[in-house]
Amino acid sequence: MNLLLLEEADFLSESRVRVSGRRHRQLVEVIRAEVGKRCKAGLLNGKTGTAEVLAIDAETAELAVTLDSVPPPKLPVTLIAALPRPKTFLKVLHTATVMGAKRMIFLESWKVDKSYWSTPLIEPESVREQILLALEQAGDTVPPQVEFHRRFKPFVEDELPGIAAGSFAVAGHPAAERQLPHRLTGKTTLVIGPEGGFTDYEIGLLAAHGVTPMSFGPRIMRTEFAVTAILARIGE
Amino acid sequence: MNLLLLEEADFLSESRVRVSGRRHRQLVEVIRAEVGKRCKAGLLNGKTGTAEVLAIDAETAELAVTLDSVPPPKLPVTLIAALPRPKTFLKVLHTATVMGAKRMIFLESWKVDKSYWSTPLIEPESVREQILLALEQAGDTVPPQVEFHRRFKPFVEDELPGIAAGSFAVAGHPAAERQLPHRLTGKTTLVIGPEGGFTDYEIGLLAAHGVTPMSFGPRIMRTEFAVTAILARIGE
Repeated sequence: MNLLLLEEADFLSESRVRVSGRRHRQLVEVIRAEVGKRCKAGLLNGKTGTAEVLAIDAETAELAVTLDSVPPPKLPVTLIAALPRPKTFLKVLHTATVMGAKRMIFLESWKVDKSYWSTPLIEPESVREQILLALEQAGDTVPPQVEFHRRFKPFVEDELPGIAAGSFAVAGHPAAERQLPHRLTGKTTLVIGPEGGFTDYEIGLLAAHGVTPMSFGPRIMRTEFAVTAILARIGE
Repeated sequence: MNLLLLEEADFLSESRVRVSGRRHRQLVEVIRAEVGKRCKAGLLNGKTGTAEVLAIDAETAELAVTLDSVPPPKLPVTLIAALPRPKTFLKVLHTATVMGAKRMIFLESWKVDKSYWSTPLIEPESVREQILLALEQAGDTVPPQVEFHRRFKPFVEDELPGIAAGSFAVAGHPAAERQLPHRLTGKTTLVIGPEGGFTDYEIGLLAAHGVTPMSFGPRIMRTEFAVTAILARIGE
């Protein structure tokens, strides 16, 4: 936890908060909180700053907070990924949130194992909790927008063109002749296939709706590292 | 496994190999090998190409191989990382090998927990096995050079200047005023601190021996993702 993430309900007054449960435990275990100890803090969807421990017991902590800074800027990217296996999904959600992706869409695709859609990890409560943890890791306060689409064709035909419009829109496809540029700037739409890749039909449909298939290089990376490496290429 | 990694001892003749054990199991489970099936193959420290299954039983597989391509180029980078906790060490070793780092040095530092040095995961046999798996993931054949140094000061004073010379040499330090450039080209020396960062003394010693402290940005990433993101910035 590199930032204590607060919500409106935590506030006792304009500059004083009380936390319990997981965040209290993390204050004790990670920050080794004691009276007078300071840490970074931020308000969900709001500003960042510092918090100072005023009182702490076995259950709750009270802190004085000063929130006067803006959170780190987001990456202007929509990440669209074929839903990976549950463990990998958690890692992709984590790293893309930490890196500041604005929006994520997890999508059906021919080679996505049907069982992946029944994991409790994609339920809203679980996703929200993972996002809060990732924001606390990153030092950010603004959650990404995360969606799930179980039908590939309607999504690509009806929604993708609107998302891709005005952005650099690219889908990873090892067989593509065009190489992903080393540096990406401005609004980006990044489409990542499942293990084993998109089918030719899927790549054709993506290409017909504004997304260019490109090779991401000769080295084949695990999904969570591939996402990290490509997001790292997006800059001013 | 995206490449069947062969060693000289596997060759029955110039173009025929026999494998058993782990690689036989992976041929069965990942490639679903049967007679006539083809996959990518490569010779350790040598060329890459294709292999075709000639015969397969419950224990061994024989394949005809044609190796006529060069493996993907390495990144001209020496990664020097404070030894992370064992699980994170495995992930860093994996991602840096997959991305093609030429050389890795894992180093003592004040905030490295002493217990990390007693994990069997840093023993040569384990490291070699992890590297082979990562090469098979990446489609590469050339192992990185991996070293461990248990004394920070002698390493920085005696060895680091020779490594850093002629390279863009940088250490991650959140408090540094200089920002890491978005794109790195040419020979690079990348120094990554432990959880909690280098001490001021350590940063001073690194700076005095040719390595510039720089901030890697406002977002704090887990070590394995930070390494991935920075290596992704290195290009032609």
